[in-house]
Amino acid sequence: MKTLWEHRYAQRTQRMAGSAIRELLKLTDKPDLISFAGGLPAPEVFPVAEIAASSARVLRDHGARALQYGPTEGYLPLRRMIARHTDRYGIQISPDNVLITSGSQQALDLIGKLFINPGDRVLVESPTYLGALQAWNAYGAEYVPVPVDDNGMVPEALEAAMRSGPKFIYVLPNFQNPSGVTLSLERRRRLVELAERYGVPIVEDDPYGQLRYEDEHLPPVVVLDDARSAARNGTYQGNVIYLSTFSKILAPGLRLAWVIAPPQVIDKLVTAKQGMDLHTAIFNQMVVHDAASGGFLDRHIVTIRRTYKERRDVMLAALAEHAPPGVTWTRPQGGLFLWMTLPAHVCSQEVFRAAVEHDVAFVPGAPFHPCGGGHNTMRLNFSYADPERIREGIARLGRVLEEAVHETPARRPRLEKVGHG
Amino acid sequence: MKTLWEHRYAQRTQRMAGSAIRELLKLTDKPDLISFAGGLPAPEVFPVAEIAASSARVLRDHGARALQYGPTEGYLPLRRMIARHTDRYGIQISPDNVLITSGSQQALDLIGKLFINPGDRVLVESPTYLGALQAWNAYGAEYVPVPVDDNGMVPEALEAAMRSGPKFIYVLPNFQNPSGVTLSLERRRRLVELAERYGVPIVEDDPYGQLRYEDEHLPPVVVLDDARSAARNGTYQGNVIYLSTFSKILAPGLRLAWVIAPPQVIDKLVTAKQGMDLHTAIFNQMVVHDAASGGFLDRHIVTIRRTYKERRDVMLAALAEHAPPGVTWTRPQGGLFLWMTLPAHVCSQEVFRAAVEHDVAFVPGAPFHPCGGGHNTMRLNFSYADPERIREGIARLGRVLEEAVHETPARRPRLEKVGHG
Repeated sequence: MKTLWEHRYAQRTQRMAGSAIRELLKLTDKPDLISFAGGLPAPEVFPVAEIAASSARVLRDHGARALQYGPTEGYLPLRRMIARHTDRYGIQISPDNVLITSGSQQALDLIGKLFINPGDRVLVESPTYLGALQAWNAYGAEYVPVPVDDNGMVPEALEAAMRSGPKFIYVLPNFQNPSGVTLSLERRRRLVELAERYGVPIVEDDPYGQLRYEDEHLPPVVVLDDARSAARNGTYQGNVIYLSTFSKILAPGLRLAWVIAPPQVIDKLVTAKQGMDLHTAIFNQMVVHDAASGGFLDRHIVTIRRTYKERRDVMLAALAEHAPPGVTWTRPQGGLFLWMTLPAHVCSQEVFRAAVEHDVAFVPGAPFHPCGGGHNTMRLNFSYADPERIREGIARLGRVLEEAVHETPARRPRLEKVGHG
Repeated sequence: MKTLWEHRYAQRTQRMAGSAIRELLKLTDKPDLISFAGGLPAPEVFPVAEIAASSARVLRDHGARALQYGPTEGYLPLRRMIARHTDRYGIQISPDNVLITSGSQQALDLIGKLFINPGDRVLVESPTYLGALQAWNAYGAEYVPVPVDDNGMVPEALEAAMRSGPKFIYVLPNFQNPSGVTLSLERRRRLVELAERYGVPIVEDDPYGQLRYEDEHLPPVVVLDDARSAARNGTYQGNVIYLSTFSKILAPGLRLAWVIAPPQVIDKLVTAKQGMDLHTAIFNQMVVHDAASGGFLDRHIVTIRRTYKERRDVMLAALAEHAPPGVTWTRPQGGLFLWMTLPAHVCSQEVFRAAVEHDVAFVPGAPFHPCGGGHNTMRLNFSYADPERIREGIARLGRVLEEAVHETPARRPRLEKVGHG
């Protein structure tokens, strides 16, 4: 039975495909399956007691104010805290540079709404974060993909892509989702130079920047961009829109993230956000502000790093033990993911089906490539499963990969039918 | 100093004006001013203790699950509760009919995203809710206004407007924002018939439906539409998208609302929402589910009704005492607002300026009219200020109106300069 609504979808609705990964993840809902598929933080490190204490304190101290409508730009003390925190990295920003969003996904949607006309090209890493593609497909974005190696976007390919006139650049410099690779300092500088030379601004998405497990912190692109500019008056006025989030350092279920941008851009984002959800829940903002005060967040990040570093190391060791020859993977310095490349004749979507039968899951790499490719790649998450399950899961995966790598094309009748576009 | 971003706004960004009312409200930020301008619930009735107890319980009983990522469609027990609650009105809906949104503003944005191509016309009451205009202007909506009288949209004007081929109808049948009027039962039936005859679906926005202070509850349009259809299988499959919210019956600061629609439409809304904010904060959904369980919400709504009824009555009595002849106002049976009409020669924007000088504020009516008009109208909120301040504020307003009504055109040199478009 069709209702009147179904004849009335806007053109853009045709462009909004449900996430292919979401469909795949439904297959992983089996009791004994070990999943490296999602991008979930470890529930063991959620600060449940601290959030409970902060919720109680906020309602005791602020009462009705925590439950009333709030300003679209966000709770001022939280914006101040973020400005101070960002100051640590050596750039001067003021609360006028900060907008609170309902998760970074909303920031991506806001950016699409403000900047993307149908047919506009966005320069992206290939592979790149699927949530950005999903947000921007709705606005009719097209993509200029730049391949990544172990040091992030390849500079020659980046410069060639700049010449095609992209509207903006989208980059995840730290422990990128999905590949786990980090853009080197040299390439960050190069990126900022090229952006300036070609007049193309940058969206820097940095959800995992604080989750580094070894070596030195690298300056965010926004900091390098700020250093480029001589004129400062305590407010950032550069060419980068920087995104980060409390999802990976506190809890994603609170849906709290932030945007740093020039004040003029923040103003436009605020106007757009007003029409989208009025404001982000003020209660959540007050709770996070309270929980993040007094040094707790810094201590908590140390705990998260320790937990995830162990899991990464366990996964890397298990892979070294169980992965068959011909399979390679990245060695991320932080974040939640590593990226695996199978021999060219193996299709990771086929492997996915076999893996789920053997009660282990990952995400096939093709959907992260906006312009195709990556049929033999896959993403593994190491933050969610505990070390024991990581060992067992990788052992299972090793057996599945062993099979897949050694299958001859004659034994893979279904391979040709799988599309990788 | 211009950044690279400012040369790159999308075409739609030009259509996103900040709310004119937001600018006006800045003028009302004076310590002694009594404001009837905002649409804020009374903080005195926020259930602070219950939300605190629910927050503690949710974190104790669900722990990390309350802080983890959640499903885009919303927390299933909350969707089930809403389905059961809606069943009370006599329609059969299932959780597949329910989507949880980050406030009703997000539902309006989602509807715009899914259904509005640039140039599409939306049939609206005139005056209508400003937040809907703000959400849909970004998608390039145009409007077919239908005037309202004391019983809501005037049927002859409605039928004429239907012939112009609107994409959908947007209606607030109960104690409409801004006018406070209620669509009569007869007109609701007529609306459903006309929608069916002309094949135009309906968005029913019902934030205040449970805040009725007298007379009988009228069936929502979605219920009349459901009754029209013979075929049912426990799931609503009709032509209405129904919106409601916890903002006015619990607390707006939690940003929780819901959409009821046919399951096929819910599926599309879910896909769009995934790209917009992944999901609404699961913590907030669990807290509201907990707080609304066990009969508390029903009891709490009785408290809110009592409080707001008293404030409405105080405002109506004060108006009868202080408003000069020639000024009329609606007598809302519920909700948060009443609507005032001044003599045709008086401009409410001029009155606003004078009122702010005398420490009282309201919202001028012109911006609620998407196609112009309403220069001599204004909206008064009666939920926020307490009875004593309502009496004092209306006395102040009465003096300002007295002045304005008796001014001769010769004494109003600035009137001609004010645009009402």
